[in-house]
Amino acid sequence: MLEQRIRNVALRSRVCTADEVQSWIQNGMTIAVSGFTKSGDAKATLQALARRKDKTGEPIKINLLSGASLGETDGILASRGLLGMRLPFQSDPDLRKSINLGEISYIDQHLSETAEWIRSGWLGDIDFAIIEATAITENGGIIPTTSVGNSPIFVEKAKRVIVEINLSLPLELEGVHDIYLPTARPNRQPIPLVNVRDRIGTTYIPCPPDKIAAVILTTAQDTPSNVSAPDAETAAMAGHILEFLSHEVNRGRLPKNIGPLQSGIGSVANAVLSGLVQGPFHDLEIYTEVMQDAAFELLDAGKVRFASSCSFTLSQAMRRHVLSRLGEYREKVVLRPQEISNHPEIVRRLGVIAINGALEVDLYGNVNSTHVSGTHMMNGVGGSGDFARNAALSIFVTKSTAKDGRISSVIPFVTHVDHPEHDVDVIVTERGIADLRGLAPRQRARAIIDHIAHPDYQDALRDYVRHAESHSGNTPHALDEAFGWHLRLQQQGDMRTMPSPVRAVN
Amino acid sequence: MLEQRIRNVALRSRVCTADEVQSWIQNGMTIAVSGFTKSGDAKATLQALARRKDKTGEPIKINLLSGASLGETDGILASRGLLGMRLPFQSDPDLRKSINLGEISYIDQHLSETAEWIRSGWLGDIDFAIIEATAITENGGIIPTTSVGNSPIFVEKAKRVIVEINLSLPLELEGVHDIYLPTARPNRQPIPLVNVRDRIGTTYIPCPPDKIAAVILTTAQDTPSNVSAPDAETAAMAGHILEFLSHEVNRGRLPKNIGPLQSGIGSVANAVLSGLVQGPFHDLEIYTEVMQDAAFELLDAGKVRFASSCSFTLSQAMRRHVLSRLGEYREKVVLRPQEISNHPEIVRRLGVIAINGALEVDLYGNVNSTHVSGTHMMNGVGGSGDFARNAALSIFVTKSTAKDGRISSVIPFVTHVDHPEHDVDVIVTERGIADLRGLAPRQRARAIIDHIAHPDYQDALRDYVRHAESHSGNTPHALDEAFGWHLRLQQQGDMRTMPSPVRAVN
Repeated sequence: MLEQRIRNVALRSRVCTADEVQSWIQNGMTIAVSGFTKSGDAKATLQALARRKDKTGEPIKINLLSGASLGETDGILASRGLLGMRLPFQSDPDLRKSINLGEISYIDQHLSETAEWIRSGWLGDIDFAIIEATAITENGGIIPTTSVGNSPIFVEKAKRVIVEINLSLPLELEGVHDIYLPTARPNRQPIPLVNVRDRIGTTYIPCPPDKIAAVILTTAQDTPSNVSAPDAETAAMAGHILEFLSHEVNRGRLPKNIGPLQSGIGSVANAVLSGLVQGPFHDLEIYTEVMQDAAFELLDAGKVRFASSCSFTLSQAMRRHVLSRLGEYREKVVLRPQEISNHPEIVRRLGVIAINGALEVDLYGNVNSTHVSGTHMMNGVGGSGDFARNAALSIFVTKSTAKDGRISSVIPFVTHVDHPEHDVDVIVTERGIADLRGLAPRQRARAIIDHIAHPDYQDALRDYVRHAESHSGNTPHALDEAFGWHLRLQQQGDMRTMPSPVRAVN
Repeated sequence: MLEQRIRNVALRSRVCTADEVQSWIQNGMTIAVSGFTKSGDAKATLQALARRKDKTGEPIKINLLSGASLGETDGILASRGLLGMRLPFQSDPDLRKSINLGEISYIDQHLSETAEWIRSGWLGDIDFAIIEATAITENGGIIPTTSVGNSPIFVEKAKRVIVEINLSLPLELEGVHDIYLPTARPNRQPIPLVNVRDRIGTTYIPCPPDKIAAVILTTAQDTPSNVSAPDAETAAMAGHILEFLSHEVNRGRLPKNIGPLQSGIGSVANAVLSGLVQGPFHDLEIYTEVMQDAAFELLDAGKVRFASSCSFTLSQAMRRHVLSRLGEYREKVVLRPQEISNHPEIVRRLGVIAINGALEVDLYGNVNSTHVSGTHMMNGVGGSGDFARNAALSIFVTKSTAKDGRISSVIPFVTHVDHPEHDVDVIVTERGIADLRGLAPRQRARAIIDHIAHPDYQDALRDYVRHAESHSGNTPHALDEAFGWHLRLQQQGDMRTMPSPVRAVN
């Protein structure tokens, strides 16, 4: 058994416990770990570090780099004060709390860009890369598990590598991954990926065996994803998107299979993708950073012919299902480094149709997808910017209101801009679809108010526009009122000034 | 003479006057013209259309697409009410005025993206492409003049093409251009450009001769650029950038020749580039969208070994100089379509060092480069986003104050976001340099206040941060104060509340 998991003979003598290995970690070190949206993250060593902290109470903080969010480990580290700096994405409540208190320096990043930062040297040395693996090949090659993330660049640049072999995962994961990193500058070559299904690299992360300082054996499970089930509103949004895409196909502006699809992390994006199971499209292709349950539902329904991703982020049931059928899925699925799954070069070349979630959108189509009230970080921008900027068609989705209608997701001025108007072609709420393509700002405002805002807020939005346009400008605003809705929310817990006359009668 | 300018015999019989050709233009048509930052723009036909309007007064509006800003023609058309829709960039005072009054639907775009919009079909048909040319080849190939812009995609997609041959320009322009457009999806191939100097296409824009409906002969001159001379503040900024780049080279984080340089349009960017003439760097390479005077100064000084651009946008004197020495420059310069000069795929592959201007920057490094007070369009985002998002190093430059100190360019919250914090690595004012790489938002605020804000505003900025941080958040803000500085400016013409104590003593 161990022969199959550690095929390099010399490395079999480097098997250690997580408790031994964590003792190498010192205050101020930079640690780079596998893991992308809770999937395939290195768990054993970091959790052992947390136990040491509990035991000794010593003051120790690390800088922690990853692919994207880790599972429960992010919270375990944050709640013990073990994190000094964290990048490039997170989604844990405890970590989020510490970030928003300013206790942890959180650097939010476009997920395709972290690898370039590592190459640039701006972040200094990486002391250890800790990578969850299915197995190690004869030559030290590390076969990842359920995500690739930034592991290839971490392994390349770290001083030393620790491999956590997860014995609970099937060896059939070998062959699912395609590991390729852009070559060095100058004379960097084009990334030779032309179709979603192209394999351009190796099935393992190359690593000189000598660089692997320790191998840990573990059976720790990924933290399952917790997407909520589709509801009436997400079903309506999926319906609007299907209708829109059908219209575009009929007009000859999209290919019959739509083109490669990307859909962001989270319940809404998952629900929208689920909607395609009932849709009229066949031979779909997926080119995305994260495959949630819906992507596998589409594969199982025979709707998707190939899916490229950076990770599987699944519910417990779907995870069991997928891991038990890897032999079958391996022909239809590939996992890539996030630098490739999200690369502007590839996203634009393929003509990806991008569907991402928004926290709030403003009258001109600027999108806030990260900061509640402009200040408090939710999860991070993730890959949404990599896709939205370079997509052939960029769609954002959000319910038109939140908190039982007390918050409008369509507001005069977003309190934080992750995606400037240029990166936003279409916005969808349960109310309908605002097709912003080819519209100037004043036209965008009308489309947004008329088609996607909640009726409770339409009149107030129109009032704002009227007031703003009286000051003229290509993008009319009344700066004294721009954040008025958010201030009202802060002061009285509701963005509405009063029930609109129509609703008062009801 | 005409034999050299119109080498296709059949086309010599299609020579018309601009007055004849303009009569083909009807109300509601979409017209796509050559021209990029006042350079190589089609002038004759559109100005003849303006004369018709003066004569007949008929109600006629066109949708006008171009590469970027035209010369005086933009103002001539706007002041006569001839423009319904305009994209993707402009810089004319009269056009700007009409845009800000909401009389013209202006669609601001990342300049690499217009070609994709044309392909997508969202904008409908292009009735005429009007292209300024040096000559037409035997096969109908159109040799551009001093810019390439979007002319290749316009010629490909327009129903009919009108060529304005500019007899005042030397035939030696032939060979300066390299025309390549990305191939069709699916199966679009990588753009095979790996070095700044690579030639990957043809020296002319391919066009079936039958598609050319008319050839006009003209001698109209490009509107000269009007960059102001470097001053003490721009010289200080250039000094800071030189020092910073030297430091990065010494640390081994940049190659000895820095890497391919991009610098935006305008006086500040031009002045900063001028500063390199005195700098320690050799074998510089330029990969940019517009070469202003400074780029040729660097070529003449032997500092630059090769420059790739989309246009020459020059003062009258430099224009004469360049046009008289084309035989020499042709070995060191290439003009490309803006889709290639600005393409994310290439900018990221080459590792471009991008230097772009900002109108205002906020405490967290978000940049407004287009909208005065968040409402009034200046010129447009241009190519700055194409470069800043994908650059190896993205630098923004602005003077720390404007209007005799009454406006701070460093403010709590930008009133419009063109470049989210992620796209901004370094900000430079005459006061110094804020190196934001690897900093979390709260750290960014301190670097910005300490290093680049004007002393008149530093205390007020610190007050804002103190107040904002009391509310917590990853990106602390006090929304009730966020636009307070702009409101003060609107109300009292000055962002300052009162002289700071230190300065009052002086």
